[in-house]
Amino acid sequence: MAKNKEPAFVEHITPRSEDFSQWYTDVILKADLVDYAPVRGCMVIKPYGYGIWELIQKEMDARFKATGHSNVYFPMLIPESLLLKEAEHVEGFAPEVAWVTQGGTEKLQERLAIRPTSETLFCAMYSKWVQSWRDLPMKYNQWCSVMRWEKSTRPFLRTSEFLWQEGHTIHATPEEAQEETLLMLEVYREFSENVMNIPVFTGQKSDKEKFAGARATYSMEAMMQDGKALQAGTSHNFGTNFAEVFDIQYLSKDGKLEYVHETSWGVSTRLIGALIMTHGDERGLRLPPKLAPIQVVILPIAAHKPGVLDKATELAKTLEAAGLRVELDDRDTVSAGWKFNEWELKGVPLRLELGPRDIAQGQVTFVRRDTLEKGQLPLEGIARAARDLLEEVGRALYRQAEEFKDAHTYIARNMEELTEGVQTGFVRASWCGCRECEDEIKEKTTATSRNMPFDQSDMPSDVCVCCGKPAAKVMYFAKAY
Amino acid sequence: MAKNKEPAFVEHITPRSEDFSQWYTDVILKADLVDYAPVRGCMVIKPYGYGIWELIQKEMDARFKATGHSNVYFPMLIPESLLLKEAEHVEGFAPEVAWVTQGGTEKLQERLAIRPTSETLFCAMYSKWVQSWRDLPMKYNQWCSVMRWEKSTRPFLRTSEFLWQEGHTIHATPEEAQEETLLMLEVYREFSENVMNIPVFTGQKSDKEKFAGARATYSMEAMMQDGKALQAGTSHNFGTNFAEVFDIQYLSKDGKLEYVHETSWGVSTRLIGALIMTHGDERGLRLPPKLAPIQVVILPIAAHKPGVLDKATELAKTLEAAGLRVELDDRDTVSAGWKFNEWELKGVPLRLELGPRDIAQGQVTFVRRDTLEKGQLPLEGIARAARDLLEEVGRALYRQAEEFKDAHTYIARNMEELTEGVQTGFVRASWCGCRECEDEIKEKTTATSRNMPFDQSDMPSDVCVCCGKPAAKVMYFAKAY
Repeated sequence: MAKNKEPAFVEHITPRSEDFSQWYTDVILKADLVDYAPVRGCMVIKPYGYGIWELIQKEMDARFKATGHSNVYFPMLIPESLLLKEAEHVEGFAPEVAWVTQGGTEKLQERLAIRPTSETLFCAMYSKWVQSWRDLPMKYNQWCSVMRWEKSTRPFLRTSEFLWQEGHTIHATPEEAQEETLLMLEVYREFSENVMNIPVFTGQKSDKEKFAGARATYSMEAMMQDGKALQAGTSHNFGTNFAEVFDIQYLSKDGKLEYVHETSWGVSTRLIGALIMTHGDERGLRLPPKLAPIQVVILPIAAHKPGVLDKATELAKTLEAAGLRVELDDRDTVSAGWKFNEWELKGVPLRLELGPRDIAQGQVTFVRRDTLEKGQLPLEGIARAARDLLEEVGRALYRQAEEFKDAHTYIARNMEELTEGVQTGFVRASWCGCRECEDEIKEKTTATSRNMPFDQSDMPSDVCVCCGKPAAKVMYFAKAY
Repeated sequence: MAKNKEPAFVEHITPRSEDFSQWYTDVILKADLVDYAPVRGCMVIKPYGYGIWELIQKEMDARFKATGHSNVYFPMLIPESLLLKEAEHVEGFAPEVAWVTQGGTEKLQERLAIRPTSETLFCAMYSKWVQSWRDLPMKYNQWCSVMRWEKSTRPFLRTSEFLWQEGHTIHATPEEAQEETLLMLEVYREFSENVMNIPVFTGQKSDKEKFAGARATYSMEAMMQDGKALQAGTSHNFGTNFAEVFDIQYLSKDGKLEYVHETSWGVSTRLIGALIMTHGDERGLRLPPKLAPIQVVILPIAAHKPGVLDKATELAKTLEAAGLRVELDDRDTVSAGWKFNEWELKGVPLRLELGPRDIAQGQVTFVRRDTLEKGQLPLEGIARAARDLLEEVGRALYRQAEEFKDAHTYIARNMEELTEGVQTGFVRASWCGCRECEDEIKEKTTATSRNMPFDQSDMPSDVCVCCGKPAAKVMYFAKAY
C-alpha cells in the first residue's frame, strides 16, 4: 500500500517548566480547541473545544434542573438607564461594557449595553412578575454569551466575549436566599471534583473582591500547575440590594409588602481553561473522562491484514452500545506513531490498540493517557472493563491534582513566608479583615485574597500576616488568573 | 379545608375568527411562553416557552450530528470591513444591523456589527483552516442568537434578537454542496412533519426572495390558520460566491487550487410561532407531544380522600419512569375547573384525572387536548397506553393541519383567482419567472412568491398567471409573516 508523506503534525509543545503560559497556548491551538478570531479579544471555539463545553453544559444543566431551576432566555441588550440603576453594579461593570449606539440606519436615543451580566434585566422582569408570596421562589437560569471589554485576553481564561450560564433567583426570606447561594456553590464544587476531577477551595470572598452589588460572594478556586489560582465559579447573595433599587416587592402571607432576597451564580468557558491547566502535561491535554468528547480511541494495528478492521469496527460498536464515546482511527495516511502522538495531544483518556496478535489472543492492548501505563484486556467483557478503567483514570487525575494542591498549599505567619509561598502556590494566612492589608499584600507580592474557608477554626496565627493587628479571619492568598 | 379565593386566571382569549393576530398575542402571553422586554423589539422567553425551544434543540441537534455536523461557537461581533466584503450580502443585511461603536472607555476605530448571520466570519476562518482536499468537507453548526433591527416586531415571529441555529459547510465539489443543501432542507421537512406535526411546502425560492449572496435558496413554508405563509426554515447554496470573495481555496488531489463550494441553513425560535399558529385553538395552545415540556398532567380528584394523592403520585412515577414528561398538579388553592382551563391553555397533550371511583375501578380518566375526547384507561399498563395515546395525538394534529392545508391550497389560472385564493390560503400558479410579475402580484395582492415545488410536472396553465407570457415555473404565492 502506498503511504502518503506524513504531515508534520505533532510539533513541539513548549515544556511547562520553561514557559507555562506558552505551553498553554501551544496546547489549546495544537489540540484544536480554539482559534483566534478576526475580532479583538474574541475566540472561535472549534468542534473539539466546543464538544467539551457541550458535555459541561449537559452535566451542569442536569444538576440545575435537579435542584429546581428552569432555563429562560433574556435579551442580550440592556438599556443604559437600566444598567445605571444600581450604583455599585455600574461602577464594577461600566468600564468594560460594549455599547450599541446605532440600530440599522437609526442613531439610538439611548445607548444599549451588550450584557456583561444580566442582574438588572432579571430585576426589571422580576419586579413585573412577582406579586405575592405564592409566586416565590423564582429560580431561573440562562445559557448565553456575555461581553466584557478586556484589555488583555487569553482564550478560555479571559476573552471579550465568553459563554457562560447565569442563574438568578428570588426568595421570600434571607435564609432561603443564603441557602440557595450555598447550595449552588456546592453544586459547583461537586461538579468540579466529580466531573472535572479538579479539587477546589470553596469559601467567601473579601469585600474588596466580591461581585459588584452583592452582599456576599462565594467562590471556588482551583490551583493551576504554576501554583496560580483560577476562580472557577461564583455564587452571590444580593440580599435586598437590587430589590430595593428595582422595587421588587411581594405581598407576604401576613399581607405586608416585603422586598425579595436575590441570588445569582455562574460558571463559564473558563472551566475549560481550568481543566487544561490542572491536568495537562508535556504531551498535551489529559481530559477528565466525563468531559472527553472522545473517551476511547481505537487504533487498528496492521489494519491491512485480514480481519483486523472488521474486529476493530466490532469493538467500536460494542463500546458505543455501552454508552461510551468512541473514535475508530482507521486512517491509512499517517503512521501509528503519529496517531499515538495526536491522540495523546488531544487528551483522549483511553487508547485501545488492536492487531492480529491481540485478536489471536482474544485481547486488546490499552494505554491510559493519564499514566501512559500499557497493558492488556480480554475482549470478552471489554465494555465493562473500559468503563472501569475510565473511572479509574478520572479518580487518578483527581488524586494527582489533589496531591499537587496539598503540596503547594502553605501556611504563612509573616510577610516573608507569604511572599515565598505565593511564588508556587496558595498561602493560608491570618488576616485582620481590612482592605488596606489586602492592598498592601497585592502591591508587595501581586497575590490577591482568594477566599475564606468555611472552616475558620484552624488559625495560622493570632495576628494579621500583614499588619500584626489581631487576626479576624483565615484567608487564602494566591496570584491569580 | 379552607379554600382560598380563586384567582381570576383563565381570562378571555380573543376568538381566532374575530382577530387572529390578537388571538396569537393573547395565547403567547396567557400561556406564559414569553414576555415583552424593556428593550425595543426584544422578548424574554419564559420557562414554558424556553422548554419548547430546548426540546426543539435536542431533536434538531441529534439530526445534525447524525448527518455528520459538529457544533462550534463563533464571536457575536463582526468587523464592518468583513461584513462589507460580499456586496449582495451587505446590501441585504446592512440596513438592519446593530452597531457597536464603543468598547469600555474606548471609541472603536472600526464599527462592529452584532451578527445578523455569520457567513462572513465562517468564511474568514475557513480561508485560514482549509489547505487541501483532505480537510474537506467541513460541516459546522452553531446555536446562538442573532440581531436584526426590525421596524415592527411580534414575539417568536419577528424580533430584533432571536435564537437560532446556523449551519455553515464547505465542500470540494458543486455536487456535494447541492446535496448538502437539499439534505438539510429534508432534515427540516422531516422534523417539521414528525416532531412539530406540521406539514410544509418545500421548494426553491425565486431570485427576488433568495438569501443575500446565495446562488439558490430553498425553504419550507408552513400554512398558518389564517391562510398566511410562515417561512419556517431555509437552506442556501452559495456556490463559490463567498469563496471567491474570501479566497477560500484548497489544493485538489490533482494539485490544483480550487474554490470551495459553500452552504448555510437555519431555523429559529420562529418555529415556536409556527406551531402556535398551526395547532392552537380557542382554548389556547395545542402542543405537539414531542415538543410539549409537559406531556401528561395528572389531576387528583377529591385529593383529600384517603389514598388519592398516593395513587396519583405513584401514577406520576410510573409515567416518568417510562420516559414521559409529567406534572402532578396537586394544588389545593384552585378548583378542578380552573386547572382544566389552565392546562388546556398551556396545550398539554394529555390530561389524566384520578379520583376515588377511578381508583376503585383500577382505571384513570383521560382527556385528549387535541379533540377534548374523554375516556378511561386501565391503570395496568398505563405507561404504554399513555405513550400510544400521545403518538395518536401527534398524528391527529398532523392530519388536521394537513386537511386544513389541502383545503386552503388553490390553483389559479388568472389574477382574479390568485387574488381570491391568497385571501385564505396558498395559490399554486404558473409563472413566467420574471421579477416584474412578482412585483406586480405583490403590489396588487400583497402576496409574495413562496417557493417552487420540486415536482414541476403539473402546471396549472401554459401561461404566466400575471403577464400571460409563456409559463416557466410552478410557483406558490401567499401572504406571509
